[in-house]
Order: sequence, then structure tokens, then C-alpha cells
Amino acid sequence: MPEFRQNLATREWVILSPGRAGRPNDFIKAKEKRPQVPEHDSECPFCPGNEERSEKPVYTYSNGDTWQVRVVPNKFAALKPDLATTRSQVGRFLGAKGFGIAEVVIEHPRHDLSIATMEKEDVAQVLSAYRNRYIDIRGNDKINLVTIFRNHGARAGTSLAHPHSQIIATPIVPPHVRYPMEQAVMYYDRFGRCVYCDMLEEEIEQKERIIMETENFVTFCPYASRSPFETRIYPKKHKASYMLIDNNEIDELADVLRTVLGKLRVCLDDPDYNYIIRSSPVGDENTRHLHWYMVLIPKISTPAGFEIGSGIYINSMPPEDAARYLRETDWP
Amino acid sequence: MPEFRQNLATREWVILSPGRAGRPNDFIKAKEKRPQVPEHDSECPFCPGNEERSEKPVYTYSNGDTWQVRVVPNKFAALKPDLATTRSQVGRFLGAKGFGIAEVVIEHPRHDLSIATMEKEDVAQVLSAYRNRYIDIRGNDKINLVTIFRNHGARAGTSLAHPHSQIIATPIVPPHVRYPMEQAVMYYDRFGRCVYCDMLEEEIEQKERIIMETENFVTFCPYASRSPFETRIYPKKHKASYMLIDNNEIDELADVLRTVLGKLRVCLDDPDYNYIIRSSPVGDENTRHLHWYMVLIPKISTPAGFEIGSGIYINSMPPEDAARYLRETDWP
Repeated sequence: MPEFRQNLATREWVILSPGRAGRPNDFIKAKEKRPQVPEHDSECPFCPGNEERSEKPVYTYSNGDTWQVRVVPNKFAALKPDLATTRSQVGRFLGAKGFGIAEVVIEHPRHDLSIATMEKEDVAQVLSAYRNRYIDIRGNDKINLVTIFRNHGARAGTSLAHPHSQIIATPIVPPHVRYPMEQAVMYYDRFGRCVYCDMLEEEIEQKERIIMETENFVTFCPYASRSPFETRIYPKKHKASYMLIDNNEIDELADVLRTVLGKLRVCLDDPDYNYIIRSSPVGDENTRHLHWYMVLIPKISTPAGFEIGSGIYINSMPPEDAARYLRETDWP
Repeated sequence: MPEFRQNLATREWVILSPGRAGRPNDFIKAKEKRPQVPEHDSECPFCPGNEERSEKPVYTYSNGDTWQVRVVPNKFAALKPDLATTRSQVGRFLGAKGFGIAEVVIEHPRHDLSIATMEKEDVAQVLSAYRNRYIDIRGNDKINLVTIFRNHGARAGTSLAHPHSQIIATPIVPPHVRYPMEQAVMYYDRFGRCVYCDMLEEEIEQKERIIMETENFVTFCPYASRSPFETRIYPKKHKASYMLIDNNEIDELADVLRTVLGKLRVCLDDPDYNYIIRSSPVGDENTRHLHWYMVLIPKISTPAGFEIGSGIYINSMPPEDAARYLRETDWP
């Protein structure tokens, strides 16, 4: 029987309509095989030896002789750092120059690895790079929002095989980010609690959607999952921004993240995916009503006209089943 | 130079970042060729002769001996009409049974046509079917929102070649629909005008994004287009709901719609696309601050982690250029 479920934090609804699909296999039929890639590709702009093809790095972590993680300005940046932020009227419309900061996090010297197949220590260095770049970028007082994300595979929006993530910082906090903040404030004022802390507590109590729980993190397929195998990682301690993660938590998150991505890789045959770190806007890092988290979205379904029109997502995979499959899947 | 642009009605921002792409050709490289389909496919559940494979039609338009348009309950409906709408708490979470109405509009007996390649008179019958079904469905007092949409091709979420559109009616009006309504009310209270009427007037004044203008409709690529070749058709007369379209307007819209889809077909080599009719919720059809319209979205770009995280879409095709290409393209 189909059902509606509401996201406690955003108040958006999803339709859970199982029956069309059932097992993880049903989602991997149509997938094109990912091409095999070599350990090193002399044509790849991110491979060692081609460093001069990127702009000067803004961050480097070295492990012995060579770099291990490099962050460089995005050569094909959608936004540019040398513009003004003044907004201007174009008739009745509002516009602004495309000021912003766009960086690429080159995660590893090897061309053929991904987060799931790296060593835990290497993943921790990527997560440290995210934090360090966040702290540096927020120092620019024209920046109001820093979005950290990873696109893996063509369906997730990238054609570059070399392991990398991206950071885009904007002067603008858009309604898409503000609306859930307003909901969180209303919840906080009504119940005196962070809505994300409550959501997490409820998921832990209901238990059936939990994939794994460690000292500081809970990984689960949320009650109101918008798409099959949507997975979230929440810190247990209330912190509004990823900026506030400590070294201990970074080591633990590295292990959790590579394990969960490995489980998804086994279950869904190396799916394309996006992951995003959702954090408070700059300046609100200590607020009581927000809570940072990571959302992992395997790209195995296609939002269509109904989703675009209504914002109500139809999900054919019960998150309880997805979580069970992922719990039962091992990743070394 | 990149720029930010704000949608006057929703207040969402887009980044227009040209330079990555330029001509329509740049968007059609990667496309798989659409398979040739026959005029009639004996395996197709929507082809004449297979009527018994669908449920009993809720609407039929006949043109002489055989049906021309048929509307049937969706056999694989994501929602069911025989459920209660009571909402219930699942711990701290809110849910409801999946009550709703899901129908398929079979647009033409021929398997190999699409809106762009049908006769204008046939398209008018499809648009009439939408209106008639809307009026009938809203008579169910548990229904609050009726979404009418068309998915064309695999990237747009359908694998069925036979020309069809869909109607999904829900008891729920989600935040995705409410938020723009709240913005529209605020605009109305401030300026005493429908924000969509103002947006339309501004597009007509600025002129460079207009594709075509007829007596009752304006077709344009909006100032803050979220993706390349996003196209909108607005009625000039202020009406909050598609329900209020008259026969005269239906005939004119049929011509406009098939022409615009034909132009997109030539320009982008028969792209996959979604179109959606955005209308007021049930009961608000006469409101002063909403305005129905159609949005056409060719599926030629991929929203990635940044779009999912921030809600800010990066568009590499200036709508001024897209509109010029479409203006200069002929469709018989």
C-alpha cells in the first residue's frame, strides 16, 4: 500500500510506493558499465605530472615526497572571485555579477581510486581539506554559504574519472536553504529542541532504518527518503556547521563514509552518486537550531514531471528495506 | 562573465555561466538516438486493439469510429483512490496512507506521434482532456492539488513510447508549492499586482527572451532560466488555474505548444523533455495572486551536487541566446 511521509525538518512530503521495485538488483539493470581506468592517466589534468595544468593550489597535504591531497581553483569555475557583489535591477528583475569561489579538491594522486576504495587515512585527509578550506573561505566576508559536494559518474554530473570533490562558495543564501532554516527556528521555538537532533533521536528509537551507529555518528536511510537508498550521516553532537568537526570525529567519519560508500558500491554495482555536506550559512555556525549532516544520493532513479511540478518525490524503495540491505552488505 | 539572476516570483537564484557551451549543438552531442517506432505496436498497452489491457476509461474523445483521446486510471499508480486521508503520527514523524488519483492521458491512437508531430486539432483534444479531467477530479473533496505533466523519453522518466501524459492528484499541498504562493501573496500585498502578470509584462518589455507572442499567450525563455532552453508559456489574461481556460484559448495553445515543441525538436535533435502545467491548488482557482502557466524543460543537462545542496542551478546557456535560436527555427 502506498503512503505519504513527511520530512520532520523540511516539512516536504514523499510518496513511498513500493511494489514497482523490490530488490537492489531492480535498480542496476539499466546501468552502463563504468569504464576501467588506469592507476595513472597522462591525459588527466589531476594526475601527478600534470600539476601545471591546474591553477596554483590553495591547499596541499603531503605525505612524504609527493602531494596526497591538492585543492585548486576550478579552471572552469561557474563563479569568479574578482567580481563585486552589488545587486542590480534589470527592469523589475534582480541580478548580480557572478562573484563566488569555486575549488576542486583532488582527493588522491591515484587516478583509479574513489572514496570507497581509498585507505581510511586518505579519506580523513580529504575530510580535513574540506574543513580547512571551509575555514579559510569563510574568512572572505562577502561569502555567505559554502557548499561542499562530490559528483561521482556521468549521471551525477561529472565526466572526470580522477577522484575529486568540489567546493562552491556564494554571496547568496537562497530560499532553498532559508526555508528549512525557518522551519527549524519554528520547531526550536515551539519544542525548545533542534529538529535535526529530534529526527536523529527518533530514527535511533525506531531503529529499522539505521545502517550503522558509531560513537559520534549515525548513518541511516531517512523515514521520508526522496529516492531509493538515500543515505544520511549525522553527527550525534549538536553542531550547526561542518567547520566545528574535530580531528577525532574526522577519523571516525572517514571510516564511516568509506564503509557506507563501499556498501552502496556492492549493493548497487558501483552506482553514480552525489554527496553533499549541508552546513549552516557563514556566521550561523553556533546556532542552536541547525545541525550539519551529509546526504548521499545514488543516481538510480529519475525525477520526472510530477516531482518537478509538485516537489513530492515518488520513491519505490522502502528505506527500511534499503537500510537492511546495506546493513547486511560487507565492505572490507 | 558569470552572473546571478533571481526568479521574480519564487525568489530562487540561478547562476548563468556561459562560455562552457554556446550553440544548441553542444547540448546534443552525448544523446543516444531515439529508436524508430512503428505506427502501431501490438505489444503496446496503449495502442488500439489493446484497450482491455487498461482499466476502464474515465474519459474518451472519439473522432468518427475510433477513439482519439482516452484517459485511463494508471495501472501502476503511485497513489490509490480507495484510501483514507487521515494523517497519523509514527513516533515524531507524520505520515498518511497513499490516497490520490493517478491517470494516464493516451493522446493519440498512433504509436509514433508526439505533440510536436500531431495535427493542431489533435493537440487541442489533449488539452481539452486535461481541462475536463481537472474539473472532474477537483469534484472529489479530498483532492487539493492536481498536477498535469508529460514525460518524453528515458531521461525525462518514461520508457513508454506511445504518446501520453499523466495527471496525479494529491490530498496534500506541499511546501514546494506553498512557498511560491506565499511569495506571490507578499508581492500582491506590497505592489497590488500578480507577480506573474508583472513578470510577463517585464519579459514583453525586455523582448529579447520572447520566442513567440500570439493573441492570448506569450512563450519565452525566462530571465532566470534554471537550465538550457527552459521555456514557458503564459496566458496573458490573469487566471490562477488551467481549469479556467476557454475553448478559444485551447485552440490557440494547441498551436503554440506543438510549434514550440517542434522548434525544440529541431534545435536540440528531438530531446527528452518534461512539461508541467502549474495551476493553483483546488479552491484557489479564482485567487488574484496566482497565474497558471506551462513550463517545458528539455533534459539536456544534469543537476549535480551543487544544485541539490544549494538549490542554485548553474545554467550555461543564456536564455537570450536560447530564445533567439528558437525564434529563428521553423516548424511547419
